[in-house]
Amino acid sequence: MDLALLFSGGKDSTLAGLFLDSFYDVRLVTGRFGVTDDWEHAAAAADRLGYPFEAVDLDRDVAEEAAARMREDGYPRNGIQRVHEHALERAADLDVDAVADGTRRDDRVPTVSRAQAQSLEDRHGVDYLSPLAGLGRHAVDRLVDENLDVETGPSAEIPKGDYEAELRELIAREGGREAVDRVFPDHEQSYVRGFADD
Amino acid sequence: MDLALLFSGGKDSTLAGLFLDSFYDVRLVTGRFGVTDDWEHAAAAADRLGYPFEAVDLDRDVAEEAAARMREDGYPRNGIQRVHEHALERAADLDVDAVADGTRRDDRVPTVSRAQAQSLEDRHGVDYLSPLAGLGRHAVDRLVDENLDVETGPSAEIPKGDYEAELRELIAREGGREAVDRVFPDHEQSYVRGFADD
Repeated sequence: MDLALLFSGGKDSTLAGLFLDSFYDVRLVTGRFGVTDDWEHAAAAADRLGYPFEAVDLDRDVAEEAAARMREDGYPRNGIQRVHEHALERAADLDVDAVADGTRRDDRVPTVSRAQAQSLEDRHGVDYLSPLAGLGRHAVDRLVDENLDVETGPSAEIPKGDYEAELRELIAREGGREAVDRVFPDHEQSYVRGFADD
Repeated sequence: MDLALLFSGGKDSTLAGLFLDSFYDVRLVTGRFGVTDDWEHAAAAADRLGYPFEAVDLDRDVAEEAAARMREDGYPRNGIQRVHEHALERAADLDVDAVADGTRRDDRVPTVSRAQAQSLEDRHGVDYLSPLAGLGRHAVDRLVDENLDVETGPSAEIPKGDYEAELRELIAREGGREAVDRVFPDHEQSYVRGFADD
């Protein structure tokens, strides 16, 4: 069975892949808006992990709207949520049996409610899986420590594979670096270098 | 890392075990009230699957209260929920790093809210994982079909490993077969015979 997993190159989506790959032929899928080439960081991480990779083009209008919303809100939640939902829709359009993401039990954003999940499944004829939805932060961190080699730090210094980098760029173009810092204060990011040494 | 997984011998808890056993030393744990020996069905299933097994004694008072509640309600939800929470507490008292169960996204009962999960984790110093919490019924059924050899049918005809059989027996002692049929109409059960043939 083929599964498309939304992949950022970070620890959560990578761990989700490890949970799924006993059961599915996992393809790592990264959305891109055409703003920057940061998706290439996700492609490189996928290559190091040995998974097939696919970049999926997202709608530039969604990025513009999300960036404007984030500037207006002064925080990223609603914009990130909107983009995540859009990326899931695009992944579900691929020729796969299932789509998945790395959302965790304790995440405030993005979240996919049971009703949203069922709607996505019904409209696209796919299963939607969030294998970390039943894991808290501590369990995820322990499993990441045991299984992955991860670089963590402030967003500005860590390679990012997903659309967050593109949204930051759009916000910077309109509002400068200060706008980015206001929307994403102290935001910590992770980037997976590979598997942990045995 | 050691993990105690609440195990009934049915398809959901078995599939949860398959999701976890790449990451943890999984021990299958079945609660028993001392009413019947049905936990031995779970022990037999665990043996066929090749997992370590442990029976954990539950509080008989909890079973009596749950059976009375179910008779009064006319449906099993609240009683099953109470017993599941009690069993999780007992599993979390074992010398393990984590506890888990087979609750699914679309289950109405038992459910473990985020707040309940965090409380269990904080009080016992364990992680709580529900690896099927992000999977819907269709995804679970497909994965079970691909990976397990399962017998399904009405509860009365399928071997049951967990405390449900004991609760049915307690209800029957007080209210007869009619009371059991009223509380559990058309209840479908599964029992895992082993792995699917490759």
